[in-house]
Amino acid sequence: MARVVVDVMLKPEILDPQGQAVANALPRLGVTDVSSVRIGRRIEIDFTGEPDLNRAREIADKLLANPVIEDFEIRVEGASAEVA
Amino acid sequence: MARVVVDVMLKPEILDPQGQAVANALPRLGVTDVSSVRIGRRIEIDFTGEPDLNRAREIADKLLANPVIEDFEIRVEGASAEVA
Repeated sequence: MARVVVDVMLKPEILDPQGQAVANALPRLGVTDVSSVRIGRRIEIDFTGEPDLNRAREIADKLLANPVIEDFEIRVEGASAEVA
Repeated sequence: MARVVVDVMLKPEILDPQGQAVANALPRLGVTDVSSVRIGRRIEIDFTGEPDLNRAREIADKLLANPVIEDFEIRVEGASAEVA
């Protein structure tokens, strides 16, 4: 069994109100050295056999990410990332 | 500037209907060798100075994860993960 991880994040130019809300709450915890918080999704896909990056990319593109506002990265767990 | 990444996933024993919905849709894409899909959150925290893992863990524990149903991992980007 092999695991492919897909990280989906909003494109940098897209506002992230959820992350902004966390960033705004940090001074109340006494944290003042954080410049930015961005919140995205992490998807773990377990393959029964060999991990198939092309298939994982197709899954991410059709089911997991909205390419208009989101970027995604795909990697086999333990390996380095490959930008979509 | 340094970036800390927090990965928040549902605990393995907690049902993930969102991931299950993706898994159920895969045969329609012709993908039959996926055994499981789990969907969690990836949070990127940018520190202005040195990344502070203890502070990031406090942020994750208080603002980002629900420790009753979720586990989280914290790492400095480019470094190996540290389980919470």
